[in-house]
Amino acid sequence: MEIYHGYTGFIASKLREAGAEPGDVIRVDNPDGESFTGVLMPRQLLYSNRPVLVLKLSNGYNIGVKVELETRIVLLSKKKGLPGTTGSEASLKKPFVSILATGGTIASKVDYVTGAVTPLLDPQELLEWAPELSDVGFLNVREIMKKFSEDITPSDWEKLSLEVYREITNGAEGVVVAHGTDMMSYSAAALAFSIVGKPVPIVFVGSQRSSDRPSSDSFFNLYSAVLTAFKASFAESVIVMHGESSDSYAVVLRGVKARKMHTSRRDAFQPINDKPIALVYPYTREIRIVGRILEKRDRSKEALLRNKFDDKVAIVKAYPGLQEEIVNFLVDKKFSGIVIEGSGLGHVSNSLIDSLKRAVENEIPVVMTSQCLFGRVNLNVYSTGRRLLEAGVIPASDMLPETAYVKLSWILGSVTKNLAEVRQLMQTNIAGEINERHTLELYPRWSHE
Amino acid sequence: MEIYHGYTGFIASKLREAGAEPGDVIRVDNPDGESFTGVLMPRQLLYSNRPVLVLKLSNGYNIGVKVELETRIVLLSKKKGLPGTTGSEASLKKPFVSILATGGTIASKVDYVTGAVTPLLDPQELLEWAPELSDVGFLNVREIMKKFSEDITPSDWEKLSLEVYREITNGAEGVVVAHGTDMMSYSAAALAFSIVGKPVPIVFVGSQRSSDRPSSDSFFNLYSAVLTAFKASFAESVIVMHGESSDSYAVVLRGVKARKMHTSRRDAFQPINDKPIALVYPYTREIRIVGRILEKRDRSKEALLRNKFDDKVAIVKAYPGLQEEIVNFLVDKKFSGIVIEGSGLGHVSNSLIDSLKRAVENEIPVVMTSQCLFGRVNLNVYSTGRRLLEAGVIPASDMLPETAYVKLSWILGSVTKNLAEVRQLMQTNIAGEINERHTLELYPRWSHE
Repeated sequence: MEIYHGYTGFIASKLREAGAEPGDVIRVDNPDGESFTGVLMPRQLLYSNRPVLVLKLSNGYNIGVKVELETRIVLLSKKKGLPGTTGSEASLKKPFVSILATGGTIASKVDYVTGAVTPLLDPQELLEWAPELSDVGFLNVREIMKKFSEDITPSDWEKLSLEVYREITNGAEGVVVAHGTDMMSYSAAALAFSIVGKPVPIVFVGSQRSSDRPSSDSFFNLYSAVLTAFKASFAESVIVMHGESSDSYAVVLRGVKARKMHTSRRDAFQPINDKPIALVYPYTREIRIVGRILEKRDRSKEALLRNKFDDKVAIVKAYPGLQEEIVNFLVDKKFSGIVIEGSGLGHVSNSLIDSLKRAVENEIPVVMTSQCLFGRVNLNVYSTGRRLLEAGVIPASDMLPETAYVKLSWILGSVTKNLAEVRQLMQTNIAGEINERHTLELYPRWSHE
Repeated sequence: MEIYHGYTGFIASKLREAGAEPGDVIRVDNPDGESFTGVLMPRQLLYSNRPVLVLKLSNGYNIGVKVELETRIVLLSKKKGLPGTTGSEASLKKPFVSILATGGTIASKVDYVTGAVTPLLDPQELLEWAPELSDVGFLNVREIMKKFSEDITPSDWEKLSLEVYREITNGAEGVVVAHGTDMMSYSAAALAFSIVGKPVPIVFVGSQRSSDRPSSDSFFNLYSAVLTAFKASFAESVIVMHGESSDSYAVVLRGVKARKMHTSRRDAFQPINDKPIALVYPYTREIRIVGRILEKRDRSKEALLRNKFDDKVAIVKAYPGLQEEIVNFLVDKKFSGIVIEGSGLGHVSNSLIDSLKRAVENEIPVVMTSQCLFGRVNLNVYSTGRRLLEAGVIPASDMLPETAYVKLSWILGSVTKNLAEVRQLMQTNIAGEINERHTLELYPRWSHE
């Protein structure tokens, strides 16, 4: 069987005759008069017999075009050269944005044999899928790890921080981190702390559907992220993802205030206790500021790398009957810190307070957040809260449990292990993780009818 | 110093002269021409010198009315008799709803000395605060425990289930459970499982502000809950709380699909992956069905009590770097079950899969949910998920982590410890905890501008 970039049978023959290769712009004229123009994509679906050809349209979507025996394929233009990689002479001479690939769906493809999604092997393929990206400016692409985000650890945050720091000191206008979505907000929060004084934006981007699926959001998101990295006036660690399920705009969320709130929707990432910083309209290349900017783009700023994270911090969720022995185990095992996802205003069962007190007496910081996610911890309202304060528990204001975890890990690794200093720092806003001003519209609106 | 139902000085004298006691309807005519009519409330604020009198208005709110030397207080009507308690002859002869008080803010008052909120001592006070409640029908009030909800344990669910069951078999038209809000959704889920075949509704209600605060939502919520218990056409375990921050309507949420999503707002309880069952308009006494009804009111149904809960189940939240030793500890300590709050579609780090496999090999069910909350777990999309399935992890569809925890605890306590049967039951919809049909509007809408 003839196989030509994944295509078989008469489609393979037609493509070969036209001299068309993946990345080339072609036109497909069908006998019924319909005509499609787009970038030819390679076919992954080796074992399918469907006579379909995959085109990337100018709106970024891949579509499958049915090809018949009478269909004509016309080569319109050959593909553009792909941008160079970091370190090439050219890259150091003109403005560039660096894309660091870490793995995840945005850099993944479907294994059509098993039906599962696996990471893409070649980081350059990211750009092959989306050649339009290089129109925005010069892009460096580098793969620094190849991990699903659920496998990323605090020591990976250290590596990622170092690599981002290198790109920044090498002169990048901004750094895009292509990352799996599962644990992306944890990584974005880690970079918010680990690079102190950001001259340019650090932009995390991911995808809820893999790049070679027709409904993929990879292109839309990546394009929006690259735009943000090049043009945004702010210099924070942010997440750029679909703002709605349609392709209208992308939201720029402060990494420390963002959370993946849906298992599969494109607009899974949402702000918690904060507004988005900006909205990005990729078709008009507009970036509209809608929220607070805490750090401005300023290339003269000197970035400082403080990228050690303590990997012996635990998150413990409070639930009815939470067993004291779990807290005791963490203390016995000399964990470095504990973040509690308490109930309501920041509570746990009164039966647990002694074990938390013991943790504090062992110099283990215990930080209280709320599993409500929205709103603010307040340990002064109820007697349980006041007992927790007396036991030495540190209230984390309106911080997400995930952000409190990252921040505590960072403080213990990069700043101090002194309990009084940890207490002080956990309650001090460092990178926008505490928002003192909540307005009513920060709480999302549920449809009740 | 003269003290009269908590009032002092000239206000005490004026009240005594008028013959007005708490619960009476009075009119307060101030010298500036302003006039207020409402139910006189006792004063808790013994140590304040502010000359203020507390009235409950007909809209359910308590207000503080400034009283001057020239103010006139007129007694309009004496208070109505308070309803009897369970077991009284009268209560068994006419239609009644039972209110079981467990503690929490709805049954709490502010300790004005320390400023903290403590549980109310006398359950009858619930009705003294809201005498209008007895207009709806005959009410039994009984205090079955006096706990903040953060202290409630699986063994309390057993007791609560038994008490609700007793009220149902005694002929109640519905049972209202006044409960602290922190852990209310866990208890409402517990009752959804522990009473099989519900002839009448079981209605959980709480309050985000204590009953004697001017902004209290106690009355609005309790009134809506009692209405629901008396009149609703459905017979499920539900939560009734404010639908918006204003006093327009209350939402009736299926206990297994509800979650406290804000630390302090009145509309903190929201549906996750489901619609509300109904909206309640207390001023017009209307109950409007907006969602699915899974079990109808039917007094001829025989309720079955299956109220044992296993208290050795743990919730483990996945975070980057989640330490394998925590999972191993639970296995070593012979925990009965583990619920994982995984990332995204239901993932944990691949480095943890061996420890989960070991749990399953030790006959410990491991259930996968998602910390995204919205959407559905799917272990078939990515290789990590498929490895988890191979390890024997049980995917929990669109169930909340909290509900999966309660359900697993109930299955192990009341139904079976056989791993194959647990697996089967966890994936079977029993009380509405799995919603097969998700529509777009179930995802709340964030304001991005």
